[in-house]
Amino acid sequence: MNATTQATPADLPLHGITVVDLTRVLAGPACTQILGDLGARVIKVEQPGTGDDARAIGPFVEGTSAYFLSVNRNKESIALDLKQPADREVFERLLERADVLVENYRPGTMEKLGYGWAQLHARYPLLVMTSVSGFGQTGPYRGFPAYDMVVQAMSGMMSVTGHPGTGPCRVGVSIGDLGAGLYAVIGTQSALMRRARTGQGERVDVSMLDCQVALLENAIARYGATGSVPGPIGSRHPSMTPFDVFAAQDGWFVIAVGSDALFKRLCDLLELPALAGDARFESNAQRCTHEALLKELLEERLRTRPRAHWLQLLADNGIPTGEYSSVAEIVDHPQVQARGMFTQVQTGGGQPLRVAGNPLAVGQAQPLVRRQPPALDADRERILQELAMPQAPLA
Amino acid sequence: MNATTQATPADLPLHGITVVDLTRVLAGPACTQILGDLGARVIKVEQPGTGDDARAIGPFVEGTSAYFLSVNRNKESIALDLKQPADREVFERLLERADVLVENYRPGTMEKLGYGWAQLHARYPLLVMTSVSGFGQTGPYRGFPAYDMVVQAMSGMMSVTGHPGTGPCRVGVSIGDLGAGLYAVIGTQSALMRRARTGQGERVDVSMLDCQVALLENAIARYGATGSVPGPIGSRHPSMTPFDVFAAQDGWFVIAVGSDALFKRLCDLLELPALAGDARFESNAQRCTHEALLKELLEERLRTRPRAHWLQLLADNGIPTGEYSSVAEIVDHPQVQARGMFTQVQTGGGQPLRVAGNPLAVGQAQPLVRRQPPALDADRERILQELAMPQAPLA
Repeated sequence: MNATTQATPADLPLHGITVVDLTRVLAGPACTQILGDLGARVIKVEQPGTGDDARAIGPFVEGTSAYFLSVNRNKESIALDLKQPADREVFERLLERADVLVENYRPGTMEKLGYGWAQLHARYPLLVMTSVSGFGQTGPYRGFPAYDMVVQAMSGMMSVTGHPGTGPCRVGVSIGDLGAGLYAVIGTQSALMRRARTGQGERVDVSMLDCQVALLENAIARYGATGSVPGPIGSRHPSMTPFDVFAAQDGWFVIAVGSDALFKRLCDLLELPALAGDARFESNAQRCTHEALLKELLEERLRTRPRAHWLQLLADNGIPTGEYSSVAEIVDHPQVQARGMFTQVQTGGGQPLRVAGNPLAVGQAQPLVRRQPPALDADRERILQELAMPQAPLA
Repeated sequence: MNATTQATPADLPLHGITVVDLTRVLAGPACTQILGDLGARVIKVEQPGTGDDARAIGPFVEGTSAYFLSVNRNKESIALDLKQPADREVFERLLERADVLVENYRPGTMEKLGYGWAQLHARYPLLVMTSVSGFGQTGPYRGFPAYDMVVQAMSGMMSVTGHPGTGPCRVGVSIGDLGAGLYAVIGTQSALMRRARTGQGERVDVSMLDCQVALLENAIARYGATGSVPGPIGSRHPSMTPFDVFAAQDGWFVIAVGSDALFKRLCDLLELPALAGDARFESNAQRCTHEALLKELLEERLRTRPRAHWLQLLADNGIPTGEYSSVAEIVDHPQVQARGMFTQVQTGGGQPLRVAGNPLAVGQAQPLVRRQPPALDADRERILQELAMPQAPLA
């Protein structure tokens, strides 16, 4: 992870860890892709015929789902029907060799398959089982289906996102899935660290809803402290002013002022001494109270010059700032380019697709993508050979 | 993490790990709070006099920052001035005993203090150093200051959030900080796992901007696959329809239909057979094309009955649904209550404040909060005794 590491696969932090991956779509696959990026061997077990549901989600590149390609690098694939005895035997031999099983079925499904935690722990005491579900393995909602959209809305995450009066607004990425995926990685690694001390595997029960609540951050504390219910406030910061996106002559950019001293400096740089001396703006509390007026007065000045001018001036003077970027702009951003935060994956036909890399792999000498996202069942033969099992018919 | 674990502090996954924590405000403290929740000992080293800047961010409970209280449980505090020889000696004795150092100073600051990675690694070869910064330790922007707002705007995260035509919209929580905090935990844990194999500590370089790019999820893949730039789309899903927040007679709720079969079932339940047979809605691609019309037709029906009616009907029939909650509603939600996802911390005066718990601690027998958020320098005496050092004057 260090920019000077000359890493080989054996140097990767999770080298030697084998993950059997039953997950579909996003939360689980995001978790196992991070584990794979960090060096774990990830064996993706998919439904024969269709495979991961994400393989059917568009848009497609040469017939391959871009959605699937974006979260399934560094994984092998084998198609197994966990209701068929022959395939169950393969699955169980995989579990004998695995350190981690990750699944995101609805609670109860693994038990129905005969692979509930009690059964697995008795048979594979070293195995860590990470279960990602919408609501968790306990509680009145445990059996309900969920998607990112459901937990974003139910958690209150949507209620603090958006502009006042414009109706419900979703976080534009699937933070309900991705938040759970990140916590699932943390829980899995924690369980492996404990196993190293105790010699016992454990169950990691990750609820997407719980994770969204954890990510509500100080909205809960603010509500508890003041009794007032946080709502959407557009682009500004809830408790610091001026801390927002502002319009320059030719585009949007951020000014993030976290102290009175920085505010005074900002007023000097914008040649607005009147604001610096205005009692309505002298403390952060005062500036929050008069936020709309202050934004109007600042933009009156900012609209007179292009964004690049202000970005340079503020950056040169230590005031946190930055451009507002589109997805098209960020992929070519000089800082992200310099960090190597984008990588390429390929379709089966060799068509490249640019995807986000792993922030923890930035600067490593070896390529992030050790394995291209697999075709369904692509690794069956080799895996069966490793398990010393006769060739089963291709699913 | 398992709902049936009878945990004691020594059973916690990161028990035995000592973290020296130089971080301030949010991204770093969020990381070290998770490490502390999972059992690590976290020693927060703060600036004498003022301490963590977050201590000054409102709102306040009995004079204590609710913001600070929400991300500093399970930590000890000692105030040290890293420019004073006596305090530097204390800090270095702490590093001798530490497994991890976490810092979120601007790149270059630790080097100026004589505590850059090269110096620390030479002196403490087992130490893992996790550095969280706005743009990372490398690249043309490395020296620039950043806040959540800056990386949310610069990364493109804002560009996919909000309603069309309403201007820039921030994710309502500090996902720029929290995303980096979660990746910092993952990077720290994986470095500790590698250290167990190699006997060498390493540097973990976490860039808030990189982490936002990683969380852009399929927006990058969609752009790469189609060439069209993703923009804000309000509350609906970018590639599935109907998958949105809908208005019932008395409130908002989610309908999340991920397949044609579910759509047909939805039409039956809503007694809208015409929609099921309508060619404009027969495939997900068709439904996405005619999304606005479909939403209008669905809401026409949904507005005739209260939300509770539809929630029950859809849930009973396996269609992913859920209420749209405010922060006030989620804290009393039966599922989150049943999971025990909220906990309480206390001010120095004993005033309780409800905050989010840790999704990975849900269901544990012992209380999540082993230590209340500390007053500045609260643990100085005991820490100095442990280090067998003479009492230094209180900072």
